[in-house]
Amino acid sequence: MNLLPEHILDRLYAVLQERMNADPQSSYVAGLFARGTEKIAQKVIEEASETIIEAIKGDPERLREESADLLFHLMVLWTDQDILPQDVFEILERRFGTGGLDEKKSRSK
Amino acid sequence: MNLLPEHILDRLYAVLQERMNADPQSSYVAGLFARGTEKIAQKVIEEASETIIEAIKGDPERLREESADLLFHLMVLWTDQDILPQDVFEILERRFGTGGLDEKKSRSK
Amino acid sequence: MNLLPEHILDRLYAVLQERMNADPQSSYVAGLFARGTEKIAQKVIEEASETIIEAIKGDPERLREESADLLFHLMVLWTDQDILPQDVFEILERRFGTGGLDEKKSRSK
Amino acid sequence: MNLLPEHILDRLYAVLQERMNADPQSSYVAGLFARGTEKIAQKVIEEASETIIEAIKGDPERLREESADLLFHLMVLWTDQDILPQDVFEILERRFGTGGLDEKKSRSK
Repeated sequence: MNLLPEHILDRLYAVLQERMNADPQSSYVAGLFARGTEKIAQKVIEEASETIIEAIKGDPERLREESADLLFHLMVLWTDQDILPQDVFEILERRFGTGGLDEKKSRSK
Repeated sequence: MNLLPEHILDRLYAVLQERMNADPQSSYVAGLFARGTEKIAQKVIEEASETIIEAIKGDPERLREESADLLFHLMVLWTDQDILPQDVFEILERRFGTGGLDEKKSRSK
Repeated sequence: MNLLPEHILDRLYAVLQERMNADPQSSYVAGLFARGTEKIAQKVIEEASETIIEAIKGDPERLREESADLLFHLMVLWTDQDILPQDVFEILERRFGTGGLDEKKSRSK
Repeated sequence: MNLLPEHILDRLYAVLQERMNADPQSSYVAGLFARGTEKIAQKVIEEASETIIEAIKGDPERLREESADLLFHLMVLWTDQDILPQDVFEILERRFGTGGLDEKKSRSK
């Protein structure tokens, strides 16, 4: 019997939720939560910019690492704002899950 | 027997790969691929900024939508750069998969 | 006798102030003001990302153009938020005007 | 007779040029130059995101400070890439100097 959520993003989210109210000294993430939404938001933009820099440079190794950092901090932002990953995935599902054929129609812009 | 990848992110990636060499007129994504890495990179930053704006404003509904847009365009960038989602997830797995206890040690910064 | 402000940034700001309440159809800037702070903020990030992309690529010609776009949209944001360029310049003056020798002490981070 | 450039942006640029090849330990800016274009580019995006966060929040005091930080780091990027402020101002001049009446025609997008 497997009680653990299976996808790493779900497991990561569970870890982040645990850390949210932990002692700010206890981990990088706990400290980030303690510094608040603005600081987390800045980290998201920072990692997004590092991600695109590696893409422009064409360094796949670094792009993977920076993409992981971006996903990580995006999930910290979700945790901070009580957003469930599942809710975001469902939006993608709604837009692309039917074979991705109606992407143009379902995008708002 | 289930031959379909199960997570929406994996299925989305499969759709994106198909679109990569499609007629640029055929869909939003095909057009984006045709415009190249820089244009895709700009979209990633744009969606990242829209994401944090909604977080700062505290609008969870819009934050979910913008987060989905950000994930979507990040995966377009991965497709453009031949990055497999699995490779990014493995980096997260390596850092957090063992219960997330050693996050501080395993982060490089 | 010269009643015009001399620096292009000051003259640009005067133009922007005029446009702020103009018919949104009448110019790009009037339309941008009509769309509001969030849209202007997104443009600032977008131009900032285009600026750094050109720097990473090492294209000075494009870097100049994108830097001008960034400055332009930053000034649109200032106009939108009733920030005078002079107030921003005075902060720089305070930090660097005395020969720039005490930059470290005067920066808050 | 006044041999000093008058606008703070010009004086700041002169200071930055001096610092460019200084001992990286000697000042924040010298250290930034030593870390290279990517690091400087990240700082530009970081300050741009802090700037728009304050605009979204509607905090004019902090917006001025963050705008000064953004201008400062943008000029560090120019110095790093051998871009003269005057060249950027001339682009703005070309677009807006004639009374700003032809902004729409002269913008490329």
